[in-house]
Amino acid sequence: MAMRLIESLATTEALDGVFSNESILGAMLDFEAALARAEARLGVIPPTAAEAIQRAARADSFDAVELARGTLRAGTPGIPLVKALTERVLALDPASAGFVHWGATSQDAADTALVLLLRKAQALLAADHSRLDGALRRLSDQHKDTVMLGRTLLQPAPPVTFGLKTAGWLGALRRGWARVDAAFREALVLQFGGASGTLAALGEQGIAVGRALAVELGLAFPDAPWHAHRDRLAALVAASGVYTGSLGKMARDIALLMQSEVGEVAEPGGPGRGGSSTMPHKRNPIACALTLAAAHRVPGLVDTFLSGMVQEHERGAGGWQAEWLTIAAAIQAAGVAVASMAETAEGLAVDRGRMRANLEATRGVIFAERVAMMLAPSLGRDAAHGLLEEATHASIAQSRRLIDVLCEMPEVTGHLSIEALRECDAPEAYLGVAETFRIRLISPQE
Amino acid sequence: MAMRLIESLATTEALDGVFSNESILGAMLDFEAALARAEARLGVIPPTAAEAIQRAARADSFDAVELARGTLRAGTPGIPLVKALTERVLALDPASAGFVHWGATSQDAADTALVLLLRKAQALLAADHSRLDGALRRLSDQHKDTVMLGRTLLQPAPPVTFGLKTAGWLGALRRGWARVDAAFREALVLQFGGASGTLAALGEQGIAVGRALAVELGLAFPDAPWHAHRDRLAALVAASGVYTGSLGKMARDIALLMQSEVGEVAEPGGPGRGGSSTMPHKRNPIACALTLAAAHRVPGLVDTFLSGMVQEHERGAGGWQAEWLTIAAAIQAAGVAVASMAETAEGLAVDRGRMRANLEATRGVIFAERVAMMLAPSLGRDAAHGLLEEATHASIAQSRRLIDVLCEMPEVTGHLSIEALRECDAPEAYLGVAETFRIRLISPQE
Amino acid sequence: MAMRLIESLATTEALDGVFSNESILGAMLDFEAALARAEARLGVIPPTAAEAIQRAARADSFDAVELARGTLRAGTPGIPLVKALTERVLALDPASAGFVHWGATSQDAADTALVLLLRKAQALLAADHSRLDGALRRLSDQHKDTVMLGRTLLQPAPPVTFGLKTAGWLGALRRGWARVDAAFREALVLQFGGASGTLAALGEQGIAVGRALAVELGLAFPDAPWHAHRDRLAALVAASGVYTGSLGKMARDIALLMQSEVGEVAEPGGPGRGGSSTMPHKRNPIACALTLAAAHRVPGLVDTFLSGMVQEHERGAGGWQAEWLTIAAAIQAAGVAVASMAETAEGLAVDRGRMRANLEATRGVIFAERVAMMLAPSLGRDAAHGLLEEATHASIAQSRRLIDVLCEMPEVTGHLSIEALRECDAPEAYLGVAETFRIRLISPQE
Amino acid sequence: MAMRLIESLATTEALDGVFSNESILGAMLDFEAALARAEARLGVIPPTAAEAIQRAARADSFDAVELARGTLRAGTPGIPLVKALTERVLALDPASAGFVHWGATSQDAADTALVLLLRKAQALLAADHSRLDGALRRLSDQHKDTVMLGRTLLQPAPPVTFGLKTAGWLGALRRGWARVDAAFREALVLQFGGASGTLAALGEQGIAVGRALAVELGLAFPDAPWHAHRDRLAALVAASGVYTGSLGKMARDIALLMQSEVGEVAEPGGPGRGGSSTMPHKRNPIACALTLAAAHRVPGLVDTFLSGMVQEHERGAGGWQAEWLTIAAAIQAAGVAVASMAETAEGLAVDRGRMRANLEATRGVIFAERVAMMLAPSLGRDAAHGLLEEATHASIAQSRRLIDVLCEMPEVTGHLSIEALRECDAPEAYLGVAETFRIRLISPQE
Repeated sequence: MAMRLIESLATTEALDGVFSNESILGAMLDFEAALARAEARLGVIPPTAAEAIQRAARADSFDAVELARGTLRAGTPGIPLVKALTERVLALDPASAGFVHWGATSQDAADTALVLLLRKAQALLAADHSRLDGALRRLSDQHKDTVMLGRTLLQPAPPVTFGLKTAGWLGALRRGWARVDAAFREALVLQFGGASGTLAALGEQGIAVGRALAVELGLAFPDAPWHAHRDRLAALVAASGVYTGSLGKMARDIALLMQSEVGEVAEPGGPGRGGSSTMPHKRNPIACALTLAAAHRVPGLVDTFLSGMVQEHERGAGGWQAEWLTIAAAIQAAGVAVASMAETAEGLAVDRGRMRANLEATRGVIFAERVAMMLAPSLGRDAAHGLLEEATHASIAQSRRLIDVLCEMPEVTGHLSIEALRECDAPEAYLGVAETFRIRLISPQE
Repeated sequence: MAMRLIESLATTEALDGVFSNESILGAMLDFEAALARAEARLGVIPPTAAEAIQRAARADSFDAVELARGTLRAGTPGIPLVKALTERVLALDPASAGFVHWGATSQDAADTALVLLLRKAQALLAADHSRLDGALRRLSDQHKDTVMLGRTLLQPAPPVTFGLKTAGWLGALRRGWARVDAAFREALVLQFGGASGTLAALGEQGIAVGRALAVELGLAFPDAPWHAHRDRLAALVAASGVYTGSLGKMARDIALLMQSEVGEVAEPGGPGRGGSSTMPHKRNPIACALTLAAAHRVPGLVDTFLSGMVQEHERGAGGWQAEWLTIAAAIQAAGVAVASMAETAEGLAVDRGRMRANLEATRGVIFAERVAMMLAPSLGRDAAHGLLEEATHASIAQSRRLIDVLCEMPEVTGHLSIEALRECDAPEAYLGVAETFRIRLISPQE
Repeated sequence: MAMRLIESLATTEALDGVFSNESILGAMLDFEAALARAEARLGVIPPTAAEAIQRAARADSFDAVELARGTLRAGTPGIPLVKALTERVLALDPASAGFVHWGATSQDAADTALVLLLRKAQALLAADHSRLDGALRRLSDQHKDTVMLGRTLLQPAPPVTFGLKTAGWLGALRRGWARVDAAFREALVLQFGGASGTLAALGEQGIAVGRALAVELGLAFPDAPWHAHRDRLAALVAASGVYTGSLGKMARDIALLMQSEVGEVAEPGGPGRGGSSTMPHKRNPIACALTLAAAHRVPGLVDTFLSGMVQEHERGAGGWQAEWLTIAAAIQAAGVAVASMAETAEGLAVDRGRMRANLEATRGVIFAERVAMMLAPSLGRDAAHGLLEEATHASIAQSRRLIDVLCEMPEVTGHLSIEALRECDAPEAYLGVAETFRIRLISPQE
Repeated sequence: MAMRLIESLATTEALDGVFSNESILGAMLDFEAALARAEARLGVIPPTAAEAIQRAARADSFDAVELARGTLRAGTPGIPLVKALTERVLALDPASAGFVHWGATSQDAADTALVLLLRKAQALLAADHSRLDGALRRLSDQHKDTVMLGRTLLQPAPPVTFGLKTAGWLGALRRGWARVDAAFREALVLQFGGASGTLAALGEQGIAVGRALAVELGLAFPDAPWHAHRDRLAALVAASGVYTGSLGKMARDIALLMQSEVGEVAEPGGPGRGGSSTMPHKRNPIACALTLAAAHRVPGLVDTFLSGMVQEHERGAGGWQAEWLTIAAAIQAAGVAVASMAETAEGLAVDRGRMRANLEATRGVIFAERVAMMLAPSLGRDAAHGLLEEATHASIAQSRRLIDVLCEMPEVTGHLSIEALRECDAPEAYLGVAETFRIRLISPQE
């Protein structure tokens, strides 16, 4: 079982593995085996039963496709799995078969298995986020003095530094990852409640079995079962959505900067990366496109998960059944996005020359605000704004630097010296507190 | 390659096959082989090249997993596929290798392959819709006189017939399917535009090759390539969403009617269907739950597809790459829903006795509107409404029939005879034009 | 009552008026008055009652804010409206008050009112679509020979014409509008079913009253009431979503072409349009931004409408109540988008010189595909592709035209003459069937 | 300006006020006045200018409708507001007009105003959440021993207590509110960056002015401006979505329990609340329907906000412009949901008798799991399950208690005594650790 073409833009290979048949089967069997061990330790079932169950719970002896078919009929993977496991225990030790899944409900197995898979996914995402964090911090430091055009509504604006731009991405991604990480920690709890969420079948021993099971699996034991209260998972999916949104913002910026007319940065290439079947000259923003595709898909997945939270009574009919694929898809999409942006940040080619050239090509009209503010106290805001608008139009129409135009306007030179005007034309002198903001953004958060 | 556990509630097995690696690979190779045949026929490439390409384009000689990896790096399945196909042609006939994919762009292969897969899916959905249509029509005819409680905002309302209720489902589903079917027909068109959508590499022969290719594949030839204009696919996904919504409404109604406290209908059972791992007494609404799960998931998929329509220039970076999985998931979800509801409608158990009993249990308060309207002309609407409210509260509080309470109220009997009041208490006499509406709904359209 | 700041980017002023308190109130009162007239004509209620109701049903005598409060408590505007109308009739003619809303349910009034409002909205949207269609057709004709860079994944590709680009927008928008228009026509039907959708309170006269009421309101009479079957409205919202997506695609293209580094087109300016509070030099793509904002918002609204289709039994609790604002917002967003794009298309400034200059700036690397295809038959596809990749890199690294590099490569000139190579460097000669596709797209659809 | 009919199911009146024209205008003017005060204090602008700006910044002197029109043309409310404010300052003190909005950009005003509005909304939501928390805790304590049917997939399951059910709602809502509250705290930060987010126009004083401005407004000063990094707002919208989902789950449960066939609880009534225009007997779940409507709408709004996060460079074109209405709608929907559920919880009528009766009506089949587990160790799981299935079908078919059927089955009585079997039939004895879970859920969180 391995990657499917239909999903090949939607997951990394590692995350594909986390939600593979083998992995799901393994996680469900881990639940069943751990339950048996916990119950045997507490004397709830015989130790021999636990041993037999443990022996039978080997993923490679199960037919995942048969289970998938059974899942479609039963509405949950728990039912066919328990049935198949019971058959295997029966073959090993008939007396033990009655103790399979003792006191649990099929949702306990399915939900806890999901939690175990999410724990694996968390580690994969964390590693890529860490690469991305490091690479962005390095880029930001390297380019703290690299001046480039600011762009608002896709139009030229006063200058920024590429260091500030990368620090802005990093700041958002750090906040985003902190939310994802916190949401993982909140969501990684045992599900164990039995048929109605009261562990009734275990009598007084429900809590003890639950605690022991949580220990076996290395999970926290929550306040209560959450069969129909899906907010922890929903919060995780939502946090992934916010994080993926910030990754998408970074990818959009890079894809725009890679346009041939802009040409300020380029994604790393490499074999099979970003070429074209028909256009040998191309370096396509593939990592950006995959990240943007993820940022297109995740919001709809968050939406699906949230709208599925309205689950009936002690176990929902519809909302719950929509969850597995949704959460897997959201996590995989976040994963392909962070992996893509980590690879991009680590290998990003930055063209300082083009950054400077694009800035120069505006002929200084981006400093119009600056001059307007210098004139405003004497002329009034509107008059100053009007003069600059006039000068800007002249600058564009005549292909001259704005400053040159201004130096010929007596309404301007009557209030500002030529020297003061000339000083306005240097981008380095109009960066405000960009560097302070940059440092605040990249400094390690407490 | 076969069904995955993670998707096992989200697709039928047949639709899983439509979007399997084999199927996708086959469709892309069908495109490449048909292109070569069409071009050879028109003298654009040598006949020997077409033969070699045709021979090389056999799905079983390709490694789908390797292609999936290449797809992730290239951002589209077309690029690694063309590369792999070229290698195979090279091995068969080096002189022909240069003619693989002649004049096409990788998106031409990917999009046309998708269209070919959708054509397969259409047939599967149509068959299940047809079963559902037949079964609902039979149910409606059988139950044209089966009186049951109307329910508005989940509260008792004047009676309807089960025949009308099923006809209502059928009417919406027929309208829904007509939209889906029309959208399939609109969307099943060839994609063929070359690098920039002008077929420039084919010179004057672009249109002729395109037409010949469309004939080879049995597809319509559209006005122009649609590399970045995705409205036809979007309309198909959207139509599937509306149809799935109507399936979800049917499933919600059935799940509610199956509640033990209501008990008016039951889904068919069968091996592995609707049981519980812990509760042997249960008959769960599994088909309804799967359908409702689909109705939870599809809106988010529609949303994703629509938001991905904003694609840049001649080929998008992000929106396009989000499409494949989204459209496959939407079609599969619609498919599992219609299959589930077809199975349900064909085997639905209907309990006329419980329908009547639940109606009787309201003690006639559902006829309050009727009496109020009879009193309104003499008493005025508000006074009549007020009297009935009083009588209704008494009926509920004293567990007596509303009519019995009303017969003791002189404000009522002063205006209505006891006989007239008694006549108000028969549900059969208060069905209005339910049967007329039913017939209008189930009659074949136009 | 007029435009709200919070909605000021989300609606046109005209569409704001369609969903204003006055307009909603008027539509609901139109329903009540038309119902009374229809019933009086058929002898169901006294003519004097119809007259009194008609006189009382004047929107300016109602307090919309009070009704809004009542709506929040009742869960539907129908209930407080009928109550308020009854009070006014009572004051005019006590004997008629009992006949207000005779045989109808509050949802009949609310849904039919919505349909009446949608009819008004349809006309507004149609007018703007028509302006847009005309303007795009003119642009396309004017620029059928205006060559510009094709761009795929935001990277340079072989040339297209601006005429083809605008025709592509037009083709998608025409298909989109045809779907919206058809969906309006399907959705603009009377809602009239009484408490449970059987018109029970009207006995045998239900159909006759319904037909007469439909005639009064100029609406079609549907097969049956649709209190809980919302597919027609859902299909309208979905069609608006697809249409808005195509508007968004056009807006994205224009916003990208307006970047100062690209500079190929500009939105029309005008007072208060596209300026900046701080940057006097700016011409911002405001119409594009509003359209893109609509294209961001509508998919979520479609999603909400679709997920709300799962409505219980004869009247839903939750799904229905989510509809009004959702459909109004979707229609208003589509409206602001089409109005913005109509204004943009009508006043778009096109800079042919920049289009040519941006094309030239690629130094001919966009013709690499062309040369590769000419070499492929002799060299094989991969070798040809490899040579062109090499030449392209040299062209970029040395800032020379690709053709000049190729003319110095013996592996190339051994197979292609210098003359043949030079011919490859003219964009006009590499437009394929762009003009044929353009004409197919802009020709009036039958 | 007051509530609109089109929104009347979508907001509370108080939250409508928060996003009213007056309130928005006031918040933007508060920003401008505070900026002037902060800058005057630091000597950046003259004190007289700050005084004039402060005097001019009175909301009642502005025409909100004119501003709404200007906003639609400018693409942001900041531009027309600054223009209008400048005119007013000019009239008061021409020399001060040039200092309006000094060093800020229009998005600084718009975003900070939004933050100020969200702070007002937070207080309103918090108050209703607190009422809901208290009411649920009281209900849970009162009903810690109220036994009722558990229900999974809408089918009978072993018993729970109503105390546990309400505690489950409370647990999810507390977690949900904690997330919303934390997200508010994270999002309530100043926006202040000037044209490109560097505060360039303020030279070295940018940070000092920003800090002073934050103090004036009582907001935190963030690491850096967030013009195009919208994750904090996105996280707030997402958290509202999760919280609203949990409110929807509570509403769904209550609406289901209110069905006449179930009849276990009822929403509080009251004037205009839950009646019907045609059915005087009805008590509709209006508060539930409004909450469910919110739970339908919010996921789509979250989705819209997330997909809008992909904003270009230093200020987005499209994503940003989609935000205001989206966040306002999400917060208002959460607000109407929590207010509705608070009112419901405070006045919920609970019918212990019906709860017991519905439990009894299952004739003990819900204890089948219990007996099966007692038999499993001796008979094996499958055999035990099979016996119970047989007995359950007999119980249902013959309308007899399951226990009575079992007592006559020798395969059963051979392993279990009649006494042991009889003990299985008491719901109180099969509640497991329900009370422990309940206490864990309602205990104050640290």
